[in-house]
Amino acid sequence: MHVLIIGAAGMIGRKLAGAIAGSGKLGAVSVDRLTLADAITPEAPAGYSGEVSRLARDVSDPLTAPQLLAGRPDVIIHLAAIVSGEAEQDFDKGYRINLDGTRHLFDAVRQLSQSEGYCPRLVFASSIAVFGTPMPDMIDDIFLTAPMTSYGTQKAIGELLLQDYTRRGFFDGLAIRLPTICIRPGLPNKAASGFFSGILREPLAGKQALLPVPDTVRHWHASPRAAVAFLTRAATMDLGPVGHRRVLNMPGLSATVAEQIEALRRIAGDKAVALIRHEPDPGIMRIVANWPSGFTAERALELGFRAESSFDEIIRIHIEDEMGGQL
Amino acid sequence: MHVLIIGAAGMIGRKLAGAIAGSGKLGAVSVDRLTLADAITPEAPAGYSGEVSRLARDVSDPLTAPQLLAGRPDVIIHLAAIVSGEAEQDFDKGYRINLDGTRHLFDAVRQLSQSEGYCPRLVFASSIAVFGTPMPDMIDDIFLTAPMTSYGTQKAIGELLLQDYTRRGFFDGLAIRLPTICIRPGLPNKAASGFFSGILREPLAGKQALLPVPDTVRHWHASPRAAVAFLTRAATMDLGPVGHRRVLNMPGLSATVAEQIEALRRIAGDKAVALIRHEPDPGIMRIVANWPSGFTAERALELGFRAESSFDEIIRIHIEDEMGGQL
Repeated sequence: MHVLIIGAAGMIGRKLAGAIAGSGKLGAVSVDRLTLADAITPEAPAGYSGEVSRLARDVSDPLTAPQLLAGRPDVIIHLAAIVSGEAEQDFDKGYRINLDGTRHLFDAVRQLSQSEGYCPRLVFASSIAVFGTPMPDMIDDIFLTAPMTSYGTQKAIGELLLQDYTRRGFFDGLAIRLPTICIRPGLPNKAASGFFSGILREPLAGKQALLPVPDTVRHWHASPRAAVAFLTRAATMDLGPVGHRRVLNMPGLSATVAEQIEALRRIAGDKAVALIRHEPDPGIMRIVANWPSGFTAERALELGFRAESSFDEIIRIHIEDEMGGQL
Repeated sequence: MHVLIIGAAGMIGRKLAGAIAGSGKLGAVSVDRLTLADAITPEAPAGYSGEVSRLARDVSDPLTAPQLLAGRPDVIIHLAAIVSGEAEQDFDKGYRINLDGTRHLFDAVRQLSQSEGYCPRLVFASSIAVFGTPMPDMIDDIFLTAPMTSYGTQKAIGELLLQDYTRRGFFDGLAIRLPTICIRPGLPNKAASGFFSGILREPLAGKQALLPVPDTVRHWHASPRAAVAFLTRAATMDLGPVGHRRVLNMPGLSATVAEQIEALRRIAGDKAVALIRHEPDPGIMRIVANWPSGFTAERALELGFRAESSFDEIIRIHIEDEMGGQL
């Protein structure tokens, strides 16, 4: 199988490429060819014996998608996006990358579908940012999309296009709405959600972290490992049981910041917790107040998607995957 | 006030322009200038003393919207669309007119908003085609959009863009999801919903009509007169109470085909009903099976939008407005 990952230099893209390279497989299927694309040249994943192409391309250029599809990948995993904060600051860039880029990709697949019957699996990473207030504590699978950011708008439009193109038979698509990924390794990106990871990642590494919101804030989380598993399942599962509604709320863990901090205390002690400094940021508080606190994720659970069930588990995954298993 | 109607040569556009021309007003506000645009030159509405510009333009051409906005209309009513049947048959044309055309318009307003603080009211005619099965008998105001046609997809995307552009302050937008308009005067268009009007309009005129679905089919209707009133209210009401969710399901009448026919019998007798010939059309039955049967329309009702409460009323409106008041 030939897998194309667009957005392969991002955190999730790197982990997914690494998982494929390490096992030689996506789920149960052997992967003999990997095309990795991003705005910058993605790193070569370690230990892969198949053929790898690494491409630096601008997805908002209409010429990019046909190049990415030149090897007719069987599976396309589309992760490339300008994150919420940046899409909010730069209106044009957000629409150019997140909407036009997605549409160029879908249309390039459509051209090949119409000219030669090409019909790849296409997985689109969507987001819980498609939802907006007022919303229930636990959002069900039939709740309206009413985004309150340009990023959420662009993701919701991508979902609609994916479903129409799938219905038309141009590709076999599935959009999955990822929870906030926690604990993100490395440096903060421009996402307003960065602190959810920062208040754990930094203290685990012995560093100070800022908490810009009250600890009563409840949000929806899954680990990077869960995200890779979601994408893998979405890319390889039988989509028959999904039916024509090709957008799924992924499972996750609904937790307050206080619950995050108590899990940190259990695993790394009071000393780690003492490194969190509460410094209210009204801008971030305003953004976060519009975010979902939880999902029933019934359809995804029925289809076998699984996330973590405690923040202790999420922290342990970070220690295993990012810290060599040791505090 | 200067009003721009895009799609002014269509049935609703003509009626709206005619209502403005007749009264010199949109709602309670005097209209001294009217710009009417469509793919073909719209007719001049009778009896108008203000300034009228009539333009034949292709909305999918990026140069069109800046021309339409040259006179800085205070109110923009965007009705232009390829109908559902045609958008389904011609994928490219549907996306070009219904999605790209709408986006060009929104972006042209945005440019003027950013360069000179222009901020018109913008009313977008959306559709109940944004919904898809499975759905409840009465759809509430927080039910997901899951269109099953390209037309519905394009309308749902227009709604998302309208809300994001409104949130950003580029214009003051409201999208209204119109029920199926019944009784459509004149000749059938390419919409699969044409028979809902045909089985009343044709017998009222002494002509035969075909009914392609079982008479148990339940659907959601409002008269052309109600549609003009919806657009007028949307264009002139205070949008403060609407809040940030700028999409409203319009009220309507939930009725079966059998109920339509019984209303026809009460008003025009058995002779009229005898002109309806049942000729099942599996293609149309398949499309109609995916359509909504009713809406709670709670928010719109609270905001003062009103539709008809019986099919007798809908038929009488047709007789008054289209047949000179006489059968």
